[in-house]
Amino acid sequence: MNTSARLQAVPASPIRKLAPDAEKAKALGVKVYHLNIGDPDIHTPLEMLSVLRNWDQNPIPYELSQGSHELLNAFEYYYRGLGYSFITTHHIQVTSGGSEAISLALFATCEPGDEVVVFEPFYANYNNYAVTTGVKLVAVTTVIENGFHLPDINAIESKITAKTKAILICNPNNPTGVVYTQTEMDMLVKLAKKYHLFILSDEVYREYVYDEAKHISLFSYMEDIPSQAIVLDSVSKRYSLCGARVGMLVSLNSDLMAGVLRIAQGRLSCGYIDQKLTAKLIDIPENYISDVQKEYDKRRIVLYEGLKQISGLVVHKPEGAFYIIVKLPVNDSEAFCSWLLTDFRDNNETVMLAPAGGFYVTAGNGINEVRIAYVLNSNSLNRSIQILKKALEVYGHK
Amino acid sequence: MNTSARLQAVPASPIRKLAPDAEKAKALGVKVYHLNIGDPDIHTPLEMLSVLRNWDQNPIPYELSQGSHELLNAFEYYYRGLGYSFITTHHIQVTSGGSEAISLALFATCEPGDEVVVFEPFYANYNNYAVTTGVKLVAVTTVIENGFHLPDINAIESKITAKTKAILICNPNNPTGVVYTQTEMDMLVKLAKKYHLFILSDEVYREYVYDEAKHISLFSYMEDIPSQAIVLDSVSKRYSLCGARVGMLVSLNSDLMAGVLRIAQGRLSCGYIDQKLTAKLIDIPENYISDVQKEYDKRRIVLYEGLKQISGLVVHKPEGAFYIIVKLPVNDSEAFCSWLLTDFRDNNETVMLAPAGGFYVTAGNGINEVRIAYVLNSNSLNRSIQILKKALEVYGHK
Repeated sequence: MNTSARLQAVPASPIRKLAPDAEKAKALGVKVYHLNIGDPDIHTPLEMLSVLRNWDQNPIPYELSQGSHELLNAFEYYYRGLGYSFITTHHIQVTSGGSEAISLALFATCEPGDEVVVFEPFYANYNNYAVTTGVKLVAVTTVIENGFHLPDINAIESKITAKTKAILICNPNNPTGVVYTQTEMDMLVKLAKKYHLFILSDEVYREYVYDEAKHISLFSYMEDIPSQAIVLDSVSKRYSLCGARVGMLVSLNSDLMAGVLRIAQGRLSCGYIDQKLTAKLIDIPENYISDVQKEYDKRRIVLYEGLKQISGLVVHKPEGAFYIIVKLPVNDSEAFCSWLLTDFRDNNETVMLAPAGGFYVTAGNGINEVRIAYVLNSNSLNRSIQILKKALEVYGHK
Repeated sequence: MNTSARLQAVPASPIRKLAPDAEKAKALGVKVYHLNIGDPDIHTPLEMLSVLRNWDQNPIPYELSQGSHELLNAFEYYYRGLGYSFITTHHIQVTSGGSEAISLALFATCEPGDEVVVFEPFYANYNNYAVTTGVKLVAVTTVIENGFHLPDINAIESKITAKTKAILICNPNNPTGVVYTQTEMDMLVKLAKKYHLFILSDEVYREYVYDEAKHISLFSYMEDIPSQAIVLDSVSKRYSLCGARVGMLVSLNSDLMAGVLRIAQGRLSCGYIDQKLTAKLIDIPENYISDVQKEYDKRRIVLYEGLKQISGLVVHKPEGAFYIIVKLPVNDSEAFCSWLLTDFRDNNETVMLAPAGGFYVTAGNGINEVRIAYVLNSNSLNRSIQILKKALEVYGHK
């Protein structure tokens, strides 16, 4: 029996498609440094984990579909701390990770076949959500040579058609590490106003900006374009809670929030335990986030300086998040990434990287690039750089 | 800014749409007996909760997209215990509750606009998943007078068109309590073969069958129609784990499982903690499930016998699950259910029921029916019956 054509069209995740090769290598006793996925080794705050150790509730019931009162209040508190006190619990929908928030936003803003402007390379799973919601992603290409900042307004405007319903950004950016400037954000908001578009801003790496970069949140425009602005968020990276599937969709558009809640009611609720745990964010000491930010900054420098020493690589210094796109001296980075797992060992160790082709929609773009996540500690990063250098020497240019 | 027409088309859940009225009543100090939702008061096994109290893992990472090895092995063990030893970990996708499993199955089997035959009244959230996946539910009506068993084959066959891709059943049934007989299951499988359809069988209430009823699982046909059979499952009701969002989609169709995994990779993983907890199902004493089954059976009798004493009601004895559809002597059950929450109090207590109109797609069907979940203990059920009886006397026939 044939499955649907749309199921066949769902792309494999470039972040996870090589996982079987990695599993095989590990089964053979090979140590694999996972730089392919943004799954940090940073500790989850103990204030959160103590919820588990003190658990005394039984049974484990459904939570409210919008999210628990306790967690919605905690998020209101968090956004107020950022200076966005106009965000109240009414404007927040708790989602099963940032993933569900993005899917909901695409469904809520687009009819099947409608278009959303994105900037490639972009978070590869957007392709996945686009297929499952029947939306077409139309890509404006950004390039490593100017640190993946936006091209001029005409290049973006030329991609807007009668079917365009939204602009989707990730800021700070996964996979490029770009942090959009005030000028860039102003430009996007101007376009949204001119063409009556939604702006969807994925800000799950909000706290991770470095050097002189400053995060300009879509929240700072939200009261100006209340019906058009949608922020997509998640606690996964902020508190090292990737496995607690808790994200949020935030908007002042009450029609949109009501519709999103109806969908949320259909899937009943997000995890009860995960929400209890996450609500403790109000108890976390202020220095937790800044310490984590400093640790990622340190890793960023280690990785960037290390990669610069490898001849033939094109690298740029990431301004935010915890990823970097690197151009390799190979013709097909997916073949190289696969070879790293299946064939290459240095002292019985290897590295897993994410081939970047899947972060583009334009065919041929990114095929000699990889995404590296700097989620491991500096020692592991240094060792990974060493392995990558040796591997490129063995692999040669092919 | 207008949201999409498809967002506007997402129906409000009849199970949860009156929740704001209930919240208001409770804020006023009114005790509300929740018979509207299948959120049991039965205890979650302590073997599962001890995972929380002994938690020592930090951070909380992503789990594998298919599901944790440990949980997949536990499910394989569970299905083997039921006699389906042909089900191995390769045939199981862990999902965020049964909800995600059903949505994935609709997406995987249908193009937008394709049709799925269902038997109304059906679990209301199917309407929700149908809108979000762009699928049309075509309903064969079943009636209370014969306990919601299936009509003859011609009545079903007449609903099958060139666009029909699947038959979706819930067995044991939410909301009707019907358990399909061997003859009925044979008929459905015969139709699936004749018209080359998928059969999707939602079996989350598998263990809860009563009296002479016997659950005939789609698993018992799966080796005969390996590419067509998909079982949708969940641990929510089996272990009182509604708030641990863990379900499963099970099929021998390898193309389908590969596609479903690609979607699952896009949303990264289900909850790490919830999966750790659920994997302990292998340690639960054998009598846990049978004791729970006995408890629901007791409540079923209490509810059924109690409702029979109220004049003007049409009831049938449920054969499985923990719901009953009741025909009330009112014209509009939604207005009545709302009135129960906003106006009626007996000793400052009231009951919340789910109006059944939302469990039908045929306009006008079910508008004088409600669904009652017997998830509360016998004392609460007896008190709820008393309240309902008084309320109907006050409300009169309108």
